Amino acid sequence: MSAMSDTSTIYLHDIPLPDAQNRFHQALKAAGLWQVRGIEQIGLDENALGRVLAEPVWARLSSPHYHASAMDGFAVRGASTVEALPSQPVTLAVPGEAVYLDTGDPLPEWADAVIPIEDAEPVDQVAPGGLADQPARDARRPAAIHIRAAVTPWSHVRTMGEDIVATQLVLPAGHVLRPVDLGALAACGQDNLRVARKPRVGILPTGSELVPVGVPPKAGDIIEYNSIVLAAQVESWGGEAVRFPITPDDFDAIRQQVCKAVEPCDLILLNAGSSAGSEDFSARVIASLGKVLVHGVAVRPGHPVIIGMLDCMKGGEPIQEKKAVPILGVPGYPVSAALTGEIFVEQVLARWLGRAPLAPIEIPAALTRKVTSPAGDDDYLRVAVGWVGDRLLAAPLSRGAGVITSLVRADGLVLIPSGTQGLEAGTQVSVRLYRSPMDLEQTIFTIGSHDLTLDLLAQYLAEHDRRLVSVNTGSLGGLVALRREEAHFAGSHLLDPQTGIYNLTSISQYLPGIPVRVVEWVGRTQGLLIRKGNPRQITSLQDLVRPDVRFVNRQRGSGTRVLLDYHLGGMGISPEAIQGYSQEEYTHLAVAAAVQSGRADCGLGIAAAAKALDLDFVPLFDEQYHLVIPRRNLVGGLLDPLFKVAQSPAFRKAVSALPGYDVSAMGQILVDLEG
Amino acid sequence: MSAMSDTSTIYLHDIPLPDAQNRFHQALKAAGLWQVRGIEQIGLDENALGRVLAEPVWARLSSPHYHASAMDGFAVRGASTVEALPSQPVTLAVPGEAVYLDTGDPLPEWADAVIPIEDAEPVDQVAPGGLADQPARDARRPAAIHIRAAVTPWSHVRTMGEDIVATQLVLPAGHVLRPVDLGALAACGQDNLRVARKPRVGILPTGSELVPVGVPPKAGDIIEYNSIVLAAQVESWGGEAVRFPITPDDFDAIRQQVCKAVEPCDLILLNAGSSAGSEDFSARVIASLGKVLVHGVAVRPGHPVIIGMLDCMKGGEPIQEKKAVPILGVPGYPVSAALTGEIFVEQVLARWLGRAPLAPIEIPAALTRKVTSPAGDDDYLRVAVGWVGDRLLAAPLSRGAGVITSLVRADGLVLIPSGTQGLEAGTQVSVRLYRSPMDLEQTIFTIGSHDLTLDLLAQYLAEHDRRLVSVNTGSLGGLVALRREEAHFAGSHLLDPQTGIYNLTSISQYLPGIPVRVVEWVGRTQGLLIRKGNPRQITSLQDLVRPDVRFVNRQRGSGTRVLLDYHLGGMGISPEAIQGYSQEEYTHLAVAAAVQSGRADCGLGIAAAAKALDLDFVPLFDEQYHLVIPRRNLVGGLLDPLFKVAQSPAFRKAVSALPGYDVSAMGQILVDLEG
Repeated sequence: MSAMSDTSTIYLHDIPLPDAQNRFHQALKAAGLWQVRGIEQIGLDENALGRVLAEPVWARLSSPHYHASAMDGFAVRGASTVEALPSQPVTLAVPGEAVYLDTGDPLPEWADAVIPIEDAEPVDQVAPGGLADQPARDARRPAAIHIRAAVTPWSHVRTMGEDIVATQLVLPAGHVLRPVDLGALAACGQDNLRVARKPRVGILPTGSELVPVGVPPKAGDIIEYNSIVLAAQVESWGGEAVRFPITPDDFDAIRQQVCKAVEPCDLILLNAGSSAGSEDFSARVIASLGKVLVHGVAVRPGHPVIIGMLDCMKGGEPIQEKKAVPILGVPGYPVSAALTGEIFVEQVLARWLGRAPLAPIEIPAALTRKVTSPAGDDDYLRVAVGWVGDRLLAAPLSRGAGVITSLVRADGLVLIPSGTQGLEAGTQVSVRLYRSPMDLEQTIFTIGSHDLTLDLLAQYLAEHDRRLVSVNTGSLGGLVALRREEAHFAGSHLLDPQTGIYNLTSISQYLPGIPVRVVEWVGRTQGLLIRKGNPRQITSLQDLVRPDVRFVNRQRGSGTRVLLDYHLGGMGISPEAIQGYSQEEYTHLAVAAAVQSGRADCGLGIAAAAKALDLDFVPLFDEQYHLVIPRRNLVGGLLDPLFKVAQSPAFRKAVSALPGYDVSAMGQILVDLEG
Repeated sequence: MSAMSDTSTIYLHDIPLPDAQNRFHQALKAAGLWQVRGIEQIGLDENALGRVLAEPVWARLSSPHYHASAMDGFAVRGASTVEALPSQPVTLAVPGEAVYLDTGDPLPEWADAVIPIEDAEPVDQVAPGGLADQPARDARRPAAIHIRAAVTPWSHVRTMGEDIVATQLVLPAGHVLRPVDLGALAACGQDNLRVARKPRVGILPTGSELVPVGVPPKAGDIIEYNSIVLAAQVESWGGEAVRFPITPDDFDAIRQQVCKAVEPCDLILLNAGSSAGSEDFSARVIASLGKVLVHGVAVRPGHPVIIGMLDCMKGGEPIQEKKAVPILGVPGYPVSAALTGEIFVEQVLARWLGRAPLAPIEIPAALTRKVTSPAGDDDYLRVAVGWVGDRLLAAPLSRGAGVITSLVRADGLVLIPSGTQGLEAGTQVSVRLYRSPMDLEQTIFTIGSHDLTLDLLAQYLAEHDRRLVSVNTGSLGGLVALRREEAHFAGSHLLDPQTGIYNLTSISQYLPGIPVRVVEWVGRTQGLLIRKGNPRQITSLQDLVRPDVRFVNRQRGSGTRVLLDYHLGGMGISPEAIQGYSQEEYTHLAVAAAVQSGRADCGLGIAAAAKALDLDFVPLFDEQYHLVIPRRNLVGGLLDPLFKVAQSPAFRKAVSALPGYDVSAMGQILVDLEG
């Protein structure tokens, strides 16, 4: 199971990231591997797109490669038109002194200008060969033309080399080919291109617990997908990925697989077993076949990285052509593995292709919450990014190295450099964007209460060119975020126990002075989520105090927690009497998952979450879930699609299909508060 | 030759671009073609990168799909540790009350927490099966452990669904798959994906004058590369391109080819013959097979666009499955063709793939010179973009629809909307970038005198991660650009006839008050460029007045023109006496091309240009070519690689290999002027 190891042990000696990169690059230089790894010739139309020119391309032909008419008209000598005047036309005989050309036709040797057809009057028109019924064509074959204005030499002519002169630089070496480049290369007489060979990167998944994609995993099995992610990274960076089969945690088996990979590959990624546990064989395998240069990099996530160089042996014999093959031990946690690709593999591929390394767009944004960071590490924080008002915000996502969805949801990375213990909320940070900054302008941020309709809403908003980023903090957290101008709207279902009215009391308390629109969204049924078949016979909140019942709670500040505490108070039940009361989850689905997995016997949540994970449900309360929208966010149209979707029959139908939802008032304005 | 026609005629009725796009989209809607064109199922590891999800993906499995140990350590029940104190350890029997787990191992049913191995003291250590020599492993198989601190339930456990809970939205429909997405999809139990089928776009080059890439063209032949550019565009936008062979300008042949394309293709691009000339068959072919919806769009470059819809007939029989196939008549000029792809094809492919249309990054920049524009057209201006000081500048490139290099050199497009007659120099415009804004920070702008070493310099600077954008305006134009802070440096060779010294006089005149560094670059030999074999026996400037000699000149403000005029003055030769004196070119190579093509008998220029195009050369004068650099531009390191390259033996050797160049002083500071 060591393949997923992210623990640091005494055997690892983390060194700073720049040092690790430098050692890697120096070793490649020393081995003569710090350059383009080969050149291949391809045809212009053989998937040349995205390939990297291995040599500068100089024009072989000029473009145009002859003097070409730039208009439909008559080729003439400019000198023969100098006496033309509006009142005194010059007559030019066709074809002796003038000859018709279509645009692009070559200029005759004797001519040096073109008179556009609309400036030439046909004279003594002759229609040869039955063209009498085609007057447009006749105008091009007169016996002569009248010219009423002089033309200067080379008027309306695309002279040879106007675009490119032979011998000029068309594109430099290292250029990554785009569609228009292919046109320019063809125009200047190239048909074959010399491009950098795609470096071949072997990806070797190791781990006895790994099962391939498509095989249903048992408990303890881990679906092997790091090799798919690493291969896709390699391909997207211009390399060629070679995926090897899964090898179990066995020193000899892994060593054998590495030996197999040496011949076809320029770089080997050994994933995982890169830490220093008993079944972490990567470092030992690399040491047995070459040298471990680095074991451990002070970077999070991902520190148990190994950098090594193999002396290439095959069946005990050195392979002549290859003196050394670099190898990386890639940590097993998926976020660590992907980051290792970004910070180690991309640079090397860039060098081997002769192109500049990718330079992500960096953009300043304000952190929405405080983050801590180990002082000794370069710490890469994944963030969601969006504009709220005139501020660009970066919302930190889950830090866990195992949370692959945090990479999917990440709009960018923030580097918290070593030496920094953390960053306060509001700090301006530089975000390395994973997406176009244009996307950020279509991003709607919602922070607040979790509801299953938000997933559906995200899907429907995507069809209206909006991206919904939702952060689940609970209802109160949403109102706080609105006060701090960190979200466009918040979902909220905060019951005022005094009045029985939802949200309005909390809004006046948490958003004083802020004009707010409260929009009806859904009515929902809250109740107890219980394992299928209700083995513990749980039927009411009263059962929570039973010694054989383990509860799982929602976090403080969530509407569901407020609801629970209100009713417990009314029933005179003390929280201390409930096993698991302090066990908090942040979403209805997380509560449902806790119950499904047997971690708890029941939890309070919405009917739809019970249905989603096939749990039993004891309905207890109906409640109202509203969208709270600061009215300044209604300006500019960003949120318009939200209201369109709310009215859309397809969306309402999809929500109604979930149990316990009432959509009858969805999208209606409950009240506009002046704040 | 009509395939290259860009002329407007009375048969074309240009309509505004948004109207044309709208008519196109409405026609597609009416034909039921305004949606994803089909769904296909692919494996996660079958080139899924860049494909577009046809349906939202909901998690089938939770991730983790079981409670997993987050550390190497011992699984325990939290309840059995509550009494542990530093001074009073609790003893847990292994494997009855505690069991060792590697990171990622499943938690046993009875356990609810993990104690990290470093917090568990092995007691009464037993080493089964000869492991006595492996102390690290022994620590994991003790008879019991001592615990000196309580653990709360679910500590150091990745609970089931921590990352994704089954039924949650993983990715919405319309999402373009990135490497990390493939990992998340695998993690949540997906192995096959339903993605949008790639729309097939047929590309039909037509034109009797076209020759395929690789065939040496004769005068009047045009190398057919629009189909390569259009195909690469289609592929880069997610479609599948189907290139058809070149069809001559013949109504029946083109019609037949279009009929062939109907069955396999979702969209047909007919290039060119889209104008209204006698041999422009596109509109007639489309009309004969369906309907011409638009003929002419008020957009430059590119206005003779045809939008049509074919009624699908095959051998006279309607094809049942296909009711209609859209077709675009694409203009023949390469810049027009590429722009037609961008403004018509990309949108439709986006719709057919179900993804959002590409949104180029837009960035404000200041125009470096005035541009005019026809008021009736949406005019797309190609610009080079770079930072000079704290201003982002957009330098207009050639407007010609035939100048493919202008697309290669373009960093972005500026839309001059219809209704605008043009824009003044300095106007803030919005540039739709073709490249990352990060690239712009590595861009060195040089405006000034043309020299062949600038091409070489561009190549060598690329190796230092700098992009050289050079605009040839002549030496004086360069000094003016420096005064206006529109370039980082200028190449200049302006002779002061009074003193015989280069540049210093002009600098004090044009750059008063601006501290400037003048750097030696090359000594060059200027002389007469003459056709091979010198058929007119030209040997000196005196020959320029001969009636049988046609000269080609450089533009006013160029150093070469200053040199010529100085010597003509000295010799008492009047410009009016020279045939072709008013015929101006902007570069040495353009002068050489004019001589090579027979457009002129000779011109004044540098030896290297004569050599490049295999001309004869009469050396006349040695001159000094300097780099003029405002000293403010030396701050920040952008220009540092310029000096590195100047010192590089490889670069000096490459320049010395060109005839007439003296590199002995290259890179030396001639003088620092205080301005």
